[in-house]
Amino acid sequence: MAAAEDSRVLAIASHVVSGYVGNCVTTFVLQVMGLEVSPLNTVQFSNHSGYKQTKGYRTTGAQIKELYEGLKMNGNDDFGMLLTGYIPGAEGVEVVGEIVRNLKERKKVFWLLDPVMGDQGRLYVADDVIPVYKSLLPLADLIVPNQFEAELLSGVKVDSLESLSQALTTLHQTYKVPHVIITSVTFGTSDKKMECAGSTVTSTGSSRKFVVDVSIIDGFFSGTGDMFAALTMARFRAEAEADGLLGTASWMSPDGVDALELPLARAVEKVLGSMHNVLLKTQEVRDRRMATLRAAVPDEALEERARHVRLTKASELRLVQSQRELLDPGDCVKAARLE
Amino acid sequence: MAAAEDSRVLAIASHVVSGYVGNCVTTFVLQVMGLEVSPLNTVQFSNHSGYKQTKGYRTTGAQIKELYEGLKMNGNDDFGMLLTGYIPGAEGVEVVGEIVRNLKERKKVFWLLDPVMGDQGRLYVADDVIPVYKSLLPLADLIVPNQFEAELLSGVKVDSLESLSQALTTLHQTYKVPHVIITSVTFGTSDKKMECAGSTVTSTGSSRKFVVDVSIIDGFFSGTGDMFAALTMARFRAEAEADGLLGTASWMSPDGVDALELPLARAVEKVLGSMHNVLLKTQEVRDRRMATLRAAVPDEALEERARHVRLTKASELRLVQSQRELLDPGDCVKAARLE
Repeated sequence: MAAAEDSRVLAIASHVVSGYVGNCVTTFVLQVMGLEVSPLNTVQFSNHSGYKQTKGYRTTGAQIKELYEGLKMNGNDDFGMLLTGYIPGAEGVEVVGEIVRNLKERKKVFWLLDPVMGDQGRLYVADDVIPVYKSLLPLADLIVPNQFEAELLSGVKVDSLESLSQALTTLHQTYKVPHVIITSVTFGTSDKKMECAGSTVTSTGSSRKFVVDVSIIDGFFSGTGDMFAALTMARFRAEAEADGLLGTASWMSPDGVDALELPLARAVEKVLGSMHNVLLKTQEVRDRRMATLRAAVPDEALEERARHVRLTKASELRLVQSQRELLDPGDCVKAARLE
Repeated sequence: MAAAEDSRVLAIASHVVSGYVGNCVTTFVLQVMGLEVSPLNTVQFSNHSGYKQTKGYRTTGAQIKELYEGLKMNGNDDFGMLLTGYIPGAEGVEVVGEIVRNLKERKKVFWLLDPVMGDQGRLYVADDVIPVYKSLLPLADLIVPNQFEAELLSGVKVDSLESLSQALTTLHQTYKVPHVIITSVTFGTSDKKMECAGSTVTSTGSSRKFVVDVSIIDGFFSGTGDMFAALTMARFRAEAEADGLLGTASWMSPDGVDALELPLARAVEKVLGSMHNVLLKTQEVRDRRMATLRAAVPDEALEERARHVRLTKASELRLVQSQRELLDPGDCVKAARLE
């Protein structure tokens, strides 16, 4: 067993009272996987933004800083991992950057940075957040942008396997990040399939790239990016441990390890396996609930807002009901080489 | 299976970034037991107060109210249960009272109220919180005060089985609460044993009382009250469901059910079984960690504060490692009749 402190994760992300995004996903997923999580909440909202109406408040940059001081004061800052997600505003992202620098100065900490900025062509943070993220990326060990964020950060328009591969290379080279995964990539040619591509650099800076096909499950599910990041944190750590890499900087595999044998590739296969099964269960419950709701009050009898809200609520991730699926990835789709 | 919304719990309590008290205990325990939890955090602190130094901020009464409005706005207020713990300040407790009234006006909601006010002779809320709790108790379905809080609320000094029994009766009669449990009772005669006593009234107001012996595990563990409340919520619901009571007001057993056959008594037996095993594991890890720490730096080499902090940290509940213990109560101590 690893030393206790090495399995402690500082998770900096949002909190919602009802439903599943941010730390409400991360905390449960990591705990079920047996890791100790310290959730530092960057907001407390009533629900996620998928509802299009929410109430609550943000944690200020100064408050985030103070909470971190409190952790240090009692020696509770002995984290082996750091996972960051949604942080509202450039000031908060800057404070998180200071925290990472402070942690990394004192010990080896693995930072999984989910550069939450937007999705599907829409930015949902202020413009001034982008340069701050760009300045912090070189501190990260693994980044997991979605297609939109990867395009923002790399400047590469991702519309084919070739440009997807180019985006990975550019992200490695521009920001010196050892591990990159780009999630939820669609080329507009199919509504049944997405791509998830990843890569670990070698000591000479060349990238070992892989890609995995992901079946699209119809509907809109919030929190899937957070579930992906949390599962990836847990699975990558386990695969890196299996390869004896936890003691090495950034859990880097020796240069001789092939793309498809990378701990990152093996982790992503399992992550996507679990996610697929959680989403199938979520879809099944959603369909059952919607059938009941529509039998009582048909969609046509509702205003658009009410229709949207009830569908969004029925589509909340079924995480509590999916402990088995989180632990057991089932039959996984295998990664393929990406040139 | 019960309707989905009946298994949703609104949990109003504290949040700490590192360690286990309040909603950090409640959320995980209820989720592992398969319930949907909506954690509304009344504070965000770096750590619990057992460290004697902490940083962070409180959620104001107005913010609590606003979060609840957000839940209502999207139909996310369809809770079957409400569990409340630490709420800093009278204003916050009053707002929670308004929330309970609003919820109960519209549907049947079971309220487990942990009247967190103090422990072992020491009050840790402001004086003006006490009358507010007293005014709200008649709305509760189950209250779980510790010995100190039971004395505060009942006016009965608890120093024998007779006075413990009297305190239960007084709490029922004064506040019209259908179910009462008094936890962590010591009579000063033994340092090996505590008592946990409970009672459910009949339709004519007489109480059916039981008591369970609890072995004391040496040391000081924070969050045990929260673990007790969360496990009790889950176990009492399961036992009430087994007896077909979920549809009745306050999950009340028919008058013919004996004290020792009450769902509440069966629940408490299981709760204490799980707690004992979680605390044994916590103690074991604590002792192992302290041995390592002391071998590196002996207690004598540290200032009292540093000594206290490292012991407190080593004593954090091992919840993540105790999923089996939470689900399986093991061999339980049986409840005895309390006259």
